[in-house]
Amino acid sequence: MPELVGNLLVAQSGGPTAVINASVAGVVLEAGKHECIEEIYGGLNGILGILNEDLIDLNDEKAKTIEGLKYTPAAALGTCRYKIDFTKKPENAARDMDRLFEVFQAHNIRFFFYIGGNDSQDTANKIHHEAIKRGYEMCVIGVPKTIDNDLPHTDHCPGFGSVVKYNAATVMEIALDVGAMATDDGACCLVEVMGRGAGWIAAGTVVAHRTEDDAPHIILVPEIALEEEAFLERVRATVERLKYCVVVVGEGVKNKQGEEIAADKSNLDAFGHPVLSGAADNLGKLITKKLGLKTRTVKLGYAQRAAGHYASSVDVQEAASCGAAAVRAAASGQSGFMVKIVRESDSPYRSSTELHPLGEIANVEHLIPRDWFTEDGFLPNEKFKDYIKPLIEGEVKVPTENGLPKYVVLERSPVEKKLAPRS
Amino acid sequence: MPELVGNLLVAQSGGPTAVINASVAGVVLEAGKHECIEEIYGGLNGILGILNEDLIDLNDEKAKTIEGLKYTPAAALGTCRYKIDFTKKPENAARDMDRLFEVFQAHNIRFFFYIGGNDSQDTANKIHHEAIKRGYEMCVIGVPKTIDNDLPHTDHCPGFGSVVKYNAATVMEIALDVGAMATDDGACCLVEVMGRGAGWIAAGTVVAHRTEDDAPHIILVPEIALEEEAFLERVRATVERLKYCVVVVGEGVKNKQGEEIAADKSNLDAFGHPVLSGAADNLGKLITKKLGLKTRTVKLGYAQRAAGHYASSVDVQEAASCGAAAVRAAASGQSGFMVKIVRESDSPYRSSTELHPLGEIANVEHLIPRDWFTEDGFLPNEKFKDYIKPLIEGEVKVPTENGLPKYVVLERSPVEKKLAPRS
Repeated sequence: MPELVGNLLVAQSGGPTAVINASVAGVVLEAGKHECIEEIYGGLNGILGILNEDLIDLNDEKAKTIEGLKYTPAAALGTCRYKIDFTKKPENAARDMDRLFEVFQAHNIRFFFYIGGNDSQDTANKIHHEAIKRGYEMCVIGVPKTIDNDLPHTDHCPGFGSVVKYNAATVMEIALDVGAMATDDGACCLVEVMGRGAGWIAAGTVVAHRTEDDAPHIILVPEIALEEEAFLERVRATVERLKYCVVVVGEGVKNKQGEEIAADKSNLDAFGHPVLSGAADNLGKLITKKLGLKTRTVKLGYAQRAAGHYASSVDVQEAASCGAAAVRAAASGQSGFMVKIVRESDSPYRSSTELHPLGEIANVEHLIPRDWFTEDGFLPNEKFKDYIKPLIEGEVKVPTENGLPKYVVLERSPVEKKLAPRS
Repeated sequence: MPELVGNLLVAQSGGPTAVINASVAGVVLEAGKHECIEEIYGGLNGILGILNEDLIDLNDEKAKTIEGLKYTPAAALGTCRYKIDFTKKPENAARDMDRLFEVFQAHNIRFFFYIGGNDSQDTANKIHHEAIKRGYEMCVIGVPKTIDNDLPHTDHCPGFGSVVKYNAATVMEIALDVGAMATDDGACCLVEVMGRGAGWIAAGTVVAHRTEDDAPHIILVPEIALEEEAFLERVRATVERLKYCVVVVGEGVKNKQGEEIAADKSNLDAFGHPVLSGAADNLGKLITKKLGLKTRTVKLGYAQRAAGHYASSVDVQEAASCGAAAVRAAASGQSGFMVKIVRESDSPYRSSTELHPLGEIANVEHLIPRDWFTEDGFLPNEKFKDYIKPLIEGEVKVPTENGLPKYVVLERSPVEKKLAPRS
């Protein structure tokens, strides 16, 4: 087949991370090296913006801005949680697909990159198959992104190392604070972190636990059902020994009945999952009630995934590499794959990228292996520590202005629309 | 009177900050320059440790450790919220005072420095007067410390600039995240920050609001009663305009009846104040109910006051200067004063230190002037901005090890006890 020539479209999807923009930078910088790629477009707000033909010309951005994307958190192109759902809404999904391919065709998009997590890789996979079905020549490559680190087949996901680095530093600082305040009454601080189905983010904070006395003293993850009695005993014993206890709580932690400790069933997100809040608050109340201990909670929420000021430079580099690898793959005619990270060695740490079929990625949730946790289920063990350590290495130099981080904002020069507005 | 010669004792009290250890470094480094000061002791856990004769020898610490205190958050000597309360518990208070002076005398303490906020300055004042009453020659100087910035007479308090710098950077990052996710349904994120009586911390995040569209879009402080209708309308209008809204909520925000929106009257702290939690959660629920908007909350809690990794270098320098100024004052025979910061000029920013009588500091709460806020009460105005801007300037270089901040820990070489244990 003759080499495919045409325009590139990259879009971001799902929850932002500290390094998802680094992947865009990787795509743009690599794209410049390939003659088969003509225009470099960005789609605003993921699939949603593409449906609306909201494309911007990334070639119009200053080189400095593209470089600045490497340290700018959140999604510079905007993102969405919109899903093309052939199961629940087949008619809408079919209409959306028609519209997407009208947009692709109108702008001669031949290289499409979707940066996102499980749901987004599913979308990329559907678009890949649809392109084949329609006989529309286009190379579709997924770029992994998720703080949750729950994509299968890749050693880890861009975004994960940075959230762990920030959270672990935060837990370390909180522990200094709580420890300094700890007098005879004792104190317990619960830090709630993200992670609904998988506990990678919570477990990752174990990097701060370098000696037995270091926080976090307990880490609760959704994969391991909470044994209330054993948990309370562990808190009690820790406070007896150190006069304080720091617990990291993954937001999706469940009880023995499999119910989320913080699920709010009256509040559903766009995918129909219940919004979680308050796992740490609920456990804090339990500790106060059963042990008579003063508790405080911290809920890092969006702060943790947006903390560009304390991102991991390993993570930033890998995110950019994944973007670049995606472009190389597409430019060589490959489609229907996600870029994955392969760990070459732990020490010194080295990784490379490979491709993996999208069909084996989409909607599969990668959980923490049970044997990466201690038997009692309260702390990740050495296997986990060996895995996580290299991923938080290196600091990113974020320029500052008037004492605050100076992040870049895209000019967003619009690509002229060629279609009637979406009906 | 002949020059006083003897030993120095420094202790830390109340909630830790990112720079309270810098004040200890300032004390220790300055003390080395004065011949009248013989031993340099630290009291563990504030007054509580002194009552227990838990003193450590700060001369035994490595010079590098003392230098490292400048970037190490939380209270390296430990702290307490113990109060010598002559009103509620006169007998205990009298017994405590006797014991304190036994300890001072046993260790020939002639220079006493207490680093803390309102309650701690009150304690320092009581000790100063007690020394006079007892004819015990000792110079007592208070060193200001509080993230709350609510001490009177000083331009601002060490600890305040750093919490604002970290919170403002965090709000800026959260806003990038929420803004990137904002599609047509709109979204509102509420960030709860510390500040029970005074709203300085919440108000400080206005440094991130450089254009009309920048977050925070609304800042709620305890000083200004929340007008529910006007607040909801402001959120609605902001979401209509930008598709998202970021609200910074001071934990102590009150309704028109003067009731704290988050007060938990069943949970009191050591001083009998109700523990606050959930102002942002409560307002989030209100917004969802009245405006049908999706809301998310972030509760930074202890993370904000312990965030040494993003401290203000102006703040660190001033905290150290206050410690040094306290030693100079005491060494020259002065007692019964707190060091205060005097602003010499805004641009370029310059400050100096002076002394202020402790009696005029203790238990007085300095609130934000009403005319430093816009008329509608939803954002601080230019007067506030001019005040806050210089205080967040400069980044502190924290060394790292394996990807995490490398903070120092004191050796805590104990001073031999000379008294029987406290009864």
